[in-house]
Amino acid sequence: MNIDIIDVFLHPRSVAVIGASKNPMKGGNRIVNNLIQNNFKGKVYLINPNSEGKLLGLEFKKSVLEIEDEVDLAIFYVPNRLIPGLLKDCIKKGIKGAIIEASGFEEVGEKGLELSDQILKLTDNFSKIRIVGPNCMGLTTIDGDSEGDEKGGFFCGFGVFTNYKRGNVAIISQSGMLNGGYLMYLMSKYPNLGFRYSCSIGNKMDLSELEFLEYLLEDSTVNVIALYLESFKDPIKFIKLCRKVKNIPNKTIILVKGGVTTQGQKATLSHTGALAENSQLIDAVIKQTGIIRAYSFHELFQFARTFSMMYNTGKKLPKWGNVSMIAGSGGAGTISADLTIKYGLNFPILGDKAYKALEDVFPEWMPPNRFALVDIWPAMEKAIMNKVGLDAVMKSVYKVVLSEPDIEGLFNMMFCSKQFRFLSNVDQIIEIASRSSKPIFFWLIGEDKEVRRNSQLLAKHDLPSFSSLEDMVKNFWVLVQESNNKNKILNQFMTQN
Amino acid sequence: MNIDIIDVFLHPRSVAVIGASKNPMKGGNRIVNNLIQNNFKGKVYLINPNSEGKLLGLEFKKSVLEIEDEVDLAIFYVPNRLIPGLLKDCIKKGIKGAIIEASGFEEVGEKGLELSDQILKLTDNFSKIRIVGPNCMGLTTIDGDSEGDEKGGFFCGFGVFTNYKRGNVAIISQSGMLNGGYLMYLMSKYPNLGFRYSCSIGNKMDLSELEFLEYLLEDSTVNVIALYLESFKDPIKFIKLCRKVKNIPNKTIILVKGGVTTQGQKATLSHTGALAENSQLIDAVIKQTGIIRAYSFHELFQFARTFSMMYNTGKKLPKWGNVSMIAGSGGAGTISADLTIKYGLNFPILGDKAYKALEDVFPEWMPPNRFALVDIWPAMEKAIMNKVGLDAVMKSVYKVVLSEPDIEGLFNMMFCSKQFRFLSNVDQIIEIASRSSKPIFFWLIGEDKEVRRNSQLLAKHDLPSFSSLEDMVKNFWVLVQESNNKNKILNQFMTQN
Repeated sequence: MNIDIIDVFLHPRSVAVIGASKNPMKGGNRIVNNLIQNNFKGKVYLINPNSEGKLLGLEFKKSVLEIEDEVDLAIFYVPNRLIPGLLKDCIKKGIKGAIIEASGFEEVGEKGLELSDQILKLTDNFSKIRIVGPNCMGLTTIDGDSEGDEKGGFFCGFGVFTNYKRGNVAIISQSGMLNGGYLMYLMSKYPNLGFRYSCSIGNKMDLSELEFLEYLLEDSTVNVIALYLESFKDPIKFIKLCRKVKNIPNKTIILVKGGVTTQGQKATLSHTGALAENSQLIDAVIKQTGIIRAYSFHELFQFARTFSMMYNTGKKLPKWGNVSMIAGSGGAGTISADLTIKYGLNFPILGDKAYKALEDVFPEWMPPNRFALVDIWPAMEKAIMNKVGLDAVMKSVYKVVLSEPDIEGLFNMMFCSKQFRFLSNVDQIIEIASRSSKPIFFWLIGEDKEVRRNSQLLAKHDLPSFSSLEDMVKNFWVLVQESNNKNKILNQFMTQN
Repeated sequence: MNIDIIDVFLHPRSVAVIGASKNPMKGGNRIVNNLIQNNFKGKVYLINPNSEGKLLGLEFKKSVLEIEDEVDLAIFYVPNRLIPGLLKDCIKKGIKGAIIEASGFEEVGEKGLELSDQILKLTDNFSKIRIVGPNCMGLTTIDGDSEGDEKGGFFCGFGVFTNYKRGNVAIISQSGMLNGGYLMYLMSKYPNLGFRYSCSIGNKMDLSELEFLEYLLEDSTVNVIALYLESFKDPIKFIKLCRKVKNIPNKTIILVKGGVTTQGQKATLSHTGALAENSQLIDAVIKQTGIIRAYSFHELFQFARTFSMMYNTGKKLPKWGNVSMIAGSGGAGTISADLTIKYGLNFPILGDKAYKALEDVFPEWMPPNRFALVDIWPAMEKAIMNKVGLDAVMKSVYKVVLSEPDIEGLFNMMFCSKQFRFLSNVDQIIEIASRSSKPIFFWLIGEDKEVRRNSQLLAKHDLPSFSSLEDMVKNFWVLVQESNNKNKILNQFMTQN
């Protein structure tokens, strides 16, 4: 039932833009642009009693009641005082859902609350029409890449998207920014990161995180669900829904909760009208969900990107946190070692066979460590002295550590310099890393331009790279977390049955 | 006394490169390139008994003993077993200091320790010649920007620098990477971040963080000292030296300590041969120094960049942590509010006059907050409706919050989009922000290319920008920390006298 209505919202066959406008400064203009320029396959009707003529080839109508065919959704971009009257028309027309992008409801106090009450009454408690918003940035469904033949989908926010990729990540957010400006930032910074849905739920007067989450759990095109919430609509239901993910092997939920401090709660009140929640209650709820918690937008989408890549390539999530590192710098090795402890990871002791194989490529004056932290520099120096190709050294070391059964993944520090490309042959590394079922993460340093080039090359093969060592270690740690979340529940089931 | 010898190391008049080579794959070749291409003003002598002819116009000599004039420094890039013999020649020649870039000493166990002992004896406990290293990347002094008329300085590492800016930051590091590849990364990513010295101290067989720190505390061209240490040469002396900075108003020390966990300590042993230090002892030492502690390379240089900019522009460091935020997103406001609490900052309540002034630019349906978190979007919408320029709105809001005596600084979220440049006029913002004595930090989102453009524009005026909200808040917090460190000591002095 919920799934059916969310399906209408994310895959509508026809929409009416209420407040469509010829003025490019107005949101109603940008919504129409966003729909048309992104090849929305359904029908689009423009509603504005004060506009005449055409916009992008479409005629304006005075009211939804003038439309002859059926309409799935109404998208509102009008001053909030006009909404009740227009909503009545939508109900009369039999429109199933409305997306209200305007603000000025619960978050502005008494006047806004009156308006909400009015809407509650006239929709008969949302039985006559379902509502997304108010105070939101609309919904986005991506069917095909902006650069491809299948370009397009359903884009109904007032931020016009031009560059995007379809992928396995979905967003549910109470901050429209994450569905707008920040999402644009992610799409331009990580052109290989693909999204399937972006759902801006705003004040969630009717439909909330619960219905969208239920839908996304069932949708097999989605592997990663990134959530930003300022309040829980119903904590118990939320916990129950989230726990379902533990039995879905290729799905991960990541949450940032806003408004966890008194200062943050004051801010949510003026943002989405969310009432204060006790911070200990919040912690307890999130703990019971067993999902991944992020503490910032940066973490949220970095984790999402990492999981997206892992699911795209079918990598095995690490269970014990045993990891190896190949670095060309002792200092980076030391800091990484400290970080592995901070995040409960471990560089295991190498088996005798593996150690002997490493000894062969290392010089006598600087033998390798017994544990899986490989400072590759001396081996490189030896190779240069013996006129052996550096690629062969890198290949041997990769083979040694990835063959170790105890080692579940690998960190590789890569020095990026156009002049010194021979020091790390990215193509060869990509080939080896893509073949392995173990997660392999990269820490890139060197010339900024070359760092960005290598980062893009790696990303094309779903190999995550980081500019901060701590981010790299932390992202591996969330894989371990998720692997254990899933295992725990599976084990529980096994003992129950 | 220490200052004199460090002055020789950082400003030598003549150097001998021992192990200079014509082979571009060898470090001894790159050192010569680095010196010559970067206009080293002193004399350079090439020493290699196996080389003949010239390199970059300079002739090879068999030994330092063939040099007629005085030589300040010898730079070693030879296999470690050759070092004792060559060092004897240097002593005979009266060379004051040696930089040993080779590795293979304490960090490789017994054989390396023997070598160290031998050097200790033949230098008569470093009384005959002072040593930097071994296992280091050399020293760098930047006198003028690579793009300017004064281009150059003293570059004696084996990583060749081509793009750099002279500035007020100095590095002392036990990881050569921070003086090499990572420094190149910083210089290319932040072209406006200027450095004065980069000191790679390696295993610090003789000269250590202590002598370099003493020098940098006295050097008025340096405002920010970024330290990476794997061990303390002498914790008590280190504490005493660091505490001096509290009485130097325009100087800040930031430290990352590597090897704080058992795993990290195992790694330091194989890196710089540093012996294990108890992690509680480390914490206690750092606490007593009263300097800024960073926990990663990323934090170290982000803090360094922030302080560098603050000192360049003479901004007043915040004492109480009272800050305002101008955002175009409620969600960003909420997360920032949570973060301010996490870092002990506060959005103060606005005075009546300030609040009234804000009310004027805000629409009736969405009044501003009473506290200093300004969601500017409704004011923008009102301006668009009233056909008022958006620049005027931004200017008013900036004026209101910056005029509040309680508010010590400002966070500004900036949406970067080529198409929507009218939403935030960077030039106007730079003009206002540069005039204020209060620190103003930017959080940039939007199109990646535009984000980088605006970040560079702001950086040119020493206005720091961040791509992570948490980084922005954390960097403001370290300013508060530093301001209180300094104030505490000053107050103590005032009550004592």
